[in-house]
Parts: sequence; C-alpha cells; structure tokens
Amino acid sequence: MTQQLDLSRFAINQITTPSWSMPQAIDGYARQGVSGIAVWRNFMDDYGVGQTARHLKDADMWVASLCTSAWFNDAASAGGIANGIEANRKILDQAAQIGAPCVVMVVGAMPDGEKDIAAHRARIRDALAELAPHARQVGVKLGLEPLHPMYAGSRSVLNRIKDANDLCDLLGDDTSMVADTYHCWWDPDFEAELRRTGKQRLSTFHLCDWLAETRNLRDRGMVGDGVIDFARLRSVLDDIGYDGPFELELFSELDWWKRDPEETVRIGIERCAPFVGARLR
Amino acid sequence: MTQQLDLSRFAINQITTPSWSMPQAIDGYARQGVSGIAVWRNFMDDYGVGQTARHLKDADMWVASLCTSAWFNDAASAGGIANGIEANRKILDQAAQIGAPCVVMVVGAMPDGEKDIAAHRARIRDALAELAPHARQVGVKLGLEPLHPMYAGSRSVLNRIKDANDLCDLLGDDTSMVADTYHCWWDPDFEAELRRTGKQRLSTFHLCDWLAETRNLRDRGMVGDGVIDFARLRSVLDDIGYDGPFELELFSELDWWKRDPEETVRIGIERCAPFVGARLR
Repeated sequence: MTQQLDLSRFAINQITTPSWSMPQAIDGYARQGVSGIAVWRNFMDDYGVGQTARHLKDADMWVASLCTSAWFNDAASAGGIANGIEANRKILDQAAQIGAPCVVMVVGAMPDGEKDIAAHRARIRDALAELAPHARQVGVKLGLEPLHPMYAGSRSVLNRIKDANDLCDLLGDDTSMVADTYHCWWDPDFEAELRRTGKQRLSTFHLCDWLAETRNLRDRGMVGDGVIDFARLRSVLDDIGYDGPFELELFSELDWWKRDPEETVRIGIERCAPFVGARLR
Repeated sequence: MTQQLDLSRFAINQITTPSWSMPQAIDGYARQGVSGIAVWRNFMDDYGVGQTARHLKDADMWVASLCTSAWFNDAASAGGIANGIEANRKILDQAAQIGAPCVVMVVGAMPDGEKDIAAHRARIRDALAELAPHARQVGVKLGLEPLHPMYAGSRSVLNRIKDANDLCDLLGDDTSMVADTYHCWWDPDFEAELRRTGKQRLSTFHLCDWLAETRNLRDRGMVGDGVIDFARLRSVLDDIGYDGPFELELFSELDWWKRDPEETVRIGIERCAPFVGARLR
C-alpha cells in the first residue's frame, strides 16, 4: 500500500520509536518505504557517528535534522554558557558528518535559581550569535524550534514562533525555523508567523497532534487523534511555496512508545500521508 | 505570627483546599487570619448559595471572585452555545448573591470534532458579548482569565493576556481581567500587557508558581517553589496602582491537595505574605 503514497518529503523523527536502536530505526523506516529520518544524538552516539553516516548512505536515507542541541541551562557557573556553546559546536560538526541540514536548537530552560526569564532569553540570544559563525563554517543551520510554553521551566524558554522569527531576523542566514504543530497549534499568530518565516527560512516541519485530554508533558497525539487542523496548516505551507521535509515526531510515554515500532511507523505513515505529498491532494 | 502580616488584600482560592467543604474553608481561612476567599461553585452548590452568603457574612469574609463560568464547549448542537449563555446568566446571579465582584470566565476549549480554533474563539467572543448585558444588570464583571496554552485543548481557548485585553477593549466595562502568574509567566508580553490592562480593569490577581519539573496539568507549585519572579510582578502592579485582591490558587494533585489543609493554608500565608501587603515591602 505504501508504494502508492508520495513519501518523498516524509521523514520519521527517531524519538517516535525510542525502543529501536539507530540501525533498527534506519532499517525499520526503510522497510516501510520511508527514506527520511530525523536523527537523535543519543541513538547516534550509541552506534557511533561514522557508522551512522555509513549506514544512512547504504540505506539511501536522507536526514531532515539532528536532534537536539545541548541546552544553555547552566548560567550559574561562569563557564556554563561557554560550555554549552562548545558542546553545540561539536554537535554541529556531527550534523555535518551525517548530512543533517540543521541542528534542532532546544535552547534550554531556566537555570537553577534563575527567576528572570527575560534575562535568560537574552543570554541565549547572545549564545546563539556566538555559535552562528561555526554553523556557517560547517554548513549546518541553527534550527530554532519554539517549544510549547509548558516547557519553559524545563526545556526551552523559546516559546513562540514570533520570537524564533525575531531571532532569525536578528541572527541572519545561519539560523532557520523548525516549526512544530504540537508546540504552536494554540498560538493565534501561528499561521501569520509561518508566512513571515517563509520558504527559505523553514528548515523542517514537525507533525504531531495535541490530544484534547493531555495527561502529562510527554503525551503527544498521533496525527489525526487530536484537535489540530493539518490540512489547513499544509495549505499555508503550500501558499508560501515550502518544499522541505515533514517529520512525524511523537513523544508518547503512555501509548505509542509502548507499542511495536513497526505498528507506530505503519500507522504514522497512514495518518501523515494525506499531508506530506509533494503537492496537497 | 499571622497577626503581624498585612493580609487585607489576600484571599485563598478555594480550589487550594479541595478536601474542605464550603463552611470548613470559610472557618479554616478565618482561623488563620485570612478574610478573603475565592469561591468555587461545586462547594457552594453543595452548601447552598443562600447558606454560603450567610456564612460569609457571619464570618466577615469578602469574596474575590466566583470560579468558574460554565464552558462554551458544546458548539456541535444548535442550542449548545445558547445553553452555555443561559447557564452563565444563572452563575452571574449567584455571584451577585454572594457578593463576588466577578465570575472567572474559563471560556471552554475545542468542541468535539472541531479543529478550527480561530472559529471557536470567534464563537466565544460572540457569546461573551451576548452575556455582557446580564453581567451589567446584576453588577458582576465577566472576569476573563487567560489560561496557559496547555489547556487550549481541554479548558479554554483564551490563552494570552493580550487576547483577554483585546476582548476587554471590544466588550467594554462589563468585562475585566483575571490575571494568573501560573498561566502567564512564560509570556514575553506578560508585563507589558498587565500595564495595558491597568488598575481599573484588573479584577483579581492569582498567585501560583510554576515548578521547573512539572509532572502533569494539575501540578502547580506553592509560591516560592518554582521559577516565577513574584516580587517583579508585584512591582509592575504597584506601578499601575493596582489595589485589588491577591489570591493563592493551587491545583496540586500530587502534593498540596494531599496535605492537611491547615498546613497548606499556613504555608500559603507565609509564602504569599511578602507579595500581598497593601504596599510592597
């Protein structure tokens, strides 16, 4: 059945199948006709960066992104931010090695004892500016991903697509946007800010649904099981001429992570297919 | 100890001590020197509206707000929104009976099968407009409370203080703002929009902390246990001349709701006292 679907722009984000190792994910996605992958560092580190790069090449698989950056959380110590920058330089190098066009920047949340969120946002802006030249040097974008506001305490203080667009304006061509339906669906400015992002700056687009009755912070929904209007968002992307990747990215502690990854991939393909073709059906 | 504290503007929101009935809450707060309460309908309905009003008067207790409105969730049926308006008319009447200056409007989330959040927001705007004349008639404000974006699927599609201010601009003096640190702390526009709200339109201000490691959607933090800068927000409120109530409102399934309410109230007073005096210390 999958042979009839146009999956040329479709990738599976590896966190969707966390019980699979790096080689299992590559082979498992390929087996069902998916040739795009978003790589997570923990699986890549376990397998080795060089071996990951070779396996991806052998499987003829393209890489949508490398997830994720090191967090800039440690502002307490003098060298904390500098260490974060150095860690991210190495991650950018690894992204180049596996052919990832961007590193998904999850910028980090409030450092211990910090209560000034505006000050921390400014710190992160400055750290990204310092990292940008290295990104250019290795030909990998800093893919700014606004995370849902519920992660502002623990994962990232970059929480609106507007703020990511502002950062792209400020920092220039070494940065790009990673937009995610799960993180942004509630935002009254989502569509307008996607148009502002534009085709050139949008590195990749994450598909994930928001369950009406969300139980915890890792309870994302399979596309179609929640409240998000994917057809409408796809038409906005078509309007701006976006021709980049679509990734299925699913954190699902209570449901999909417990299933056989073969099933998750199969159902993921079925659900995403209507929204990921080269042109909207 | 509490005798030395200035608690004249301080109220406890009844959901903070859900194991107490209406009379237990009134007496329990009074026992520790708190003379303000935000009433929840379920406890009031159990006790009776008339009996609640009498008990509040006998205890010399003032009411910060009545929580909450009926949701406008049922847009599927023709009469769904009309039923919501009718239910809220009765709730406004009850608010007047107990001397609550506002009903906290939790406007409702996505109706079953609805995927167009902008359309639902427009429906709610229209329903509020229809409700406003009754609010004026009974002398109770429609207190618009923007809820954290993580409740957009299940509780309320009003998620930014900016949008609540826009609604107040549009709907006029029958509406007001209910601002909550837990819902808005992450918002880069929080302080600017509080200034825009202004003293006249701010009905009540909810205190609640955001825990860095939030475990579920009812895992709010006691003031001081999280990442929110209450002193800074208090100084913004002083700047605009705000002289209304401060409420401690704590949903805490995994921690505070399990404790003896006497302890929750005692610690709540200790933690909030530095931020709720008539003037900032």
